[in-house]
Amino acid sequence: MRKILILGAGRSAASLIHYLIQHADQQEWRITVADKDATHAHSMVREGPEVAKGVALDAVEAEARAKLIADHDLVISMLPAFMHMDVLRDCLRLKKHVITPSYVPDELWKMSPEFASAGLIVLNEMGLDPGIDHMSAMRILDRIRREGGRMEAFESYTGGLVAPESDDNPWGYKFSWNPRNVLLAGQGGAARYIRDGKVKYIPYHRLFKETVRIDVAGVGGFDGYANRDSLKYRKTYGLDGIPTLLRGTLRKAGYCEAWDAFVALGCTDDSFAMELGADATFKDYIDAFLPHVANGDTRAAMAVTLGLDPQGEAMRKMDWLALFGDRTIGVAGLSPAATLQRLLEDKWKLMPDDKDMVVMWHRFRYASEGMHKEINASLTVIGQDQKHTAMARTVGLPIAMACKLVLNGKIHERGVLLPITPVLYDPILDELDRLGISFVEEDVEV
Amino acid sequence: MRKILILGAGRSAASLIHYLIQHADQQEWRITVADKDATHAHSMVREGPEVAKGVALDAVEAEARAKLIADHDLVISMLPAFMHMDVLRDCLRLKKHVITPSYVPDELWKMSPEFASAGLIVLNEMGLDPGIDHMSAMRILDRIRREGGRMEAFESYTGGLVAPESDDNPWGYKFSWNPRNVLLAGQGGAARYIRDGKVKYIPYHRLFKETVRIDVAGVGGFDGYANRDSLKYRKTYGLDGIPTLLRGTLRKAGYCEAWDAFVALGCTDDSFAMELGADATFKDYIDAFLPHVANGDTRAAMAVTLGLDPQGEAMRKMDWLALFGDRTIGVAGLSPAATLQRLLEDKWKLMPDDKDMVVMWHRFRYASEGMHKEINASLTVIGQDQKHTAMARTVGLPIAMACKLVLNGKIHERGVLLPITPVLYDPILDELDRLGISFVEEDVEV
Repeated sequence: MRKILILGAGRSAASLIHYLIQHADQQEWRITVADKDATHAHSMVREGPEVAKGVALDAVEAEARAKLIADHDLVISMLPAFMHMDVLRDCLRLKKHVITPSYVPDELWKMSPEFASAGLIVLNEMGLDPGIDHMSAMRILDRIRREGGRMEAFESYTGGLVAPESDDNPWGYKFSWNPRNVLLAGQGGAARYIRDGKVKYIPYHRLFKETVRIDVAGVGGFDGYANRDSLKYRKTYGLDGIPTLLRGTLRKAGYCEAWDAFVALGCTDDSFAMELGADATFKDYIDAFLPHVANGDTRAAMAVTLGLDPQGEAMRKMDWLALFGDRTIGVAGLSPAATLQRLLEDKWKLMPDDKDMVVMWHRFRYASEGMHKEINASLTVIGQDQKHTAMARTVGLPIAMACKLVLNGKIHERGVLLPITPVLYDPILDELDRLGISFVEEDVEV
Repeated sequence: MRKILILGAGRSAASLIHYLIQHADQQEWRITVADKDATHAHSMVREGPEVAKGVALDAVEAEARAKLIADHDLVISMLPAFMHMDVLRDCLRLKKHVITPSYVPDELWKMSPEFASAGLIVLNEMGLDPGIDHMSAMRILDRIRREGGRMEAFESYTGGLVAPESDDNPWGYKFSWNPRNVLLAGQGGAARYIRDGKVKYIPYHRLFKETVRIDVAGVGGFDGYANRDSLKYRKTYGLDGIPTLLRGTLRKAGYCEAWDAFVALGCTDDSFAMELGADATFKDYIDAFLPHVANGDTRAAMAVTLGLDPQGEAMRKMDWLALFGDRTIGVAGLSPAATLQRLLEDKWKLMPDDKDMVVMWHRFRYASEGMHKEINASLTVIGQDQKHTAMARTVGLPIAMACKLVLNGKIHERGVLLPITPVLYDPILDELDRLGISFVEEDVEV
């Protein structure tokens, strides 16, 4: 029996745990799900009481955490980033392999030789984005290069969205993951990418203005906006010197123009508490960002201040949020972003019968045999239900599959790893494909 | 003999030291100027070797600093903010009065009872802005209230500018103080003020768009943009409940529209190192913020991206900076703000024969005897020469005059103080007036 420990059992862990339980007998696995909330941990393993157990653990308690880790063979850490390094140091000391969906902090890269010489695997960025994006991009990039192609441009966009069948609001958006991350998306520094050989920067306040239109067969049109740092993928993907490289996020076409209105007003600032009482309305909230509100007409003042067509799509989206009505905020002293989040958590709620959707889209442009060529590859995943959402499946299943590869000795490399080599991407993309998580590839005429 | 210690002898200390030396015999003062740079410290006291001396001190060296403080009766700290609290703790322990031009950190307000019970004065915000702004505003506010007026609006703007006679560039600006602070002005959070009873917020990226036009008799038209936090002056000035309260900064009319172009592009971001070599040009620098540059025409692309008239004033100001030419940056790996600063330090240099100018402008609106009334008060100071600039005089002279009041026992209050009471503002404003630093007051018809 090989013992697997899952630390942190949030929303995106459902499909991961389900897979592990389903494969437990065949793979000789025993699973422990540790969460701060004991009831939640127990509920997550209900389908497989003979192979899986839930335990209570506050992962900041070093002693209890180390004791639990010591009793397992492999650790899957789904914990938030700030607890990450503590868990990893435990795993190094106690000699356990680790898999996480998280980005690799610089500090961890530096520790790679230590993990390697201890014979350990620390496999990171193993979810959707980062995760499936790495695997699907590298499989095609490696193939293009193997066939003698020279990359000219790589663009890649991913979005966690709502399925067309459940899309009943003009924003085309509902929350399928952490709302706070959606509110603060793009903050923390200028986005950077490469176009025609030059590094380009986009400040946050222009991020949702500088979008591109992307059409994905069968699911419609999207806005793509740039992610914070596309440059680091040059090295990771072996694309040094590539003339154009951009990674971004997808939203339904029209979303970004309206979201930009919130950014322009200052509504997404999370750095200060507003002077608004709990009985203030959302109209008062918007007023606070408008220098002049003639005749109390907040809607008109907003359109004028931002140069928006009062009858246009962006303002129509604002109307749908009932932004200019008398609904009260209900809590005093929130930041602008937290105030807006309160409204959106209600308006953009994924209802019990709603289904979410994950869309990923890559474009590869390259030169081969004296010709310019282009391949587009796209992935569309619709959620199964509220538990096995597209987000939970695309984040959790690759981790579970990687777990199988690691415990079955298929990965020979040691140290801090990303899923960018065939030994990882081939079996995992193939297995995802068998589960209906499939990329559609097309050669485009150029 | 009373011994005065000046810690940190930067640009703005020249007029302060001059005043202290001039009054040393009459006031029985002996002055020590301590600076990291011994040569500089010596040069600053050259005019009064019998009453003043220069010494070398690295103010972060606790032991040397404490030894020097112990040997004096009063400390004037002109040190940067991060060294502030260490000096103040020394002064508390060694029982010395302190005067500074700096804002009071929260930590210091909390220590006020300790200073008070030790019988000590810590007099802060004693320069120009903060300093002369407090004194001149409170003198008029106190008078209006004494005469039964009820304040309806208080607006106050200050600018460190170039004198009209030395204003030979289309920006109407030259550096008379720390260039870095000019580059980063307005960053670090939304500006906030009160209008018609409501708190309003302006995000940084709209700060230079939401300006007001202010005309000051004799010196022309200015743009006023809001300072970060006007709200704290409610309590300080006894203006709780005032419907309109705004403090801001003055620039020559037209400056803000052009500066906004830099903000909009992302050129004032100081948070990351750009990927530009030392041989990159300023044209390359601007290109990096433009998504598309057709035919290599950076100027046209900038105007299009920002929606600026290519023949308009803002673009003319860019031309004057030679922003689209082949001048190289000369240093690699600078932030966007630091790159721009390199260019501006050259273009906006205050030349040896140039004179700077300080302008302060207050507007008081109030109700009295059933009528609405308005008073404007303005101060214009032209620099004498490169040493005794308007900035050095208006920052340094109030500190020197406060020094006289403190050492002569005129201030009976103890603890952490601001210059908002008649015992401070009356004698200092009167003495400034005798030196030609005079407010012009006018009653305005409303």
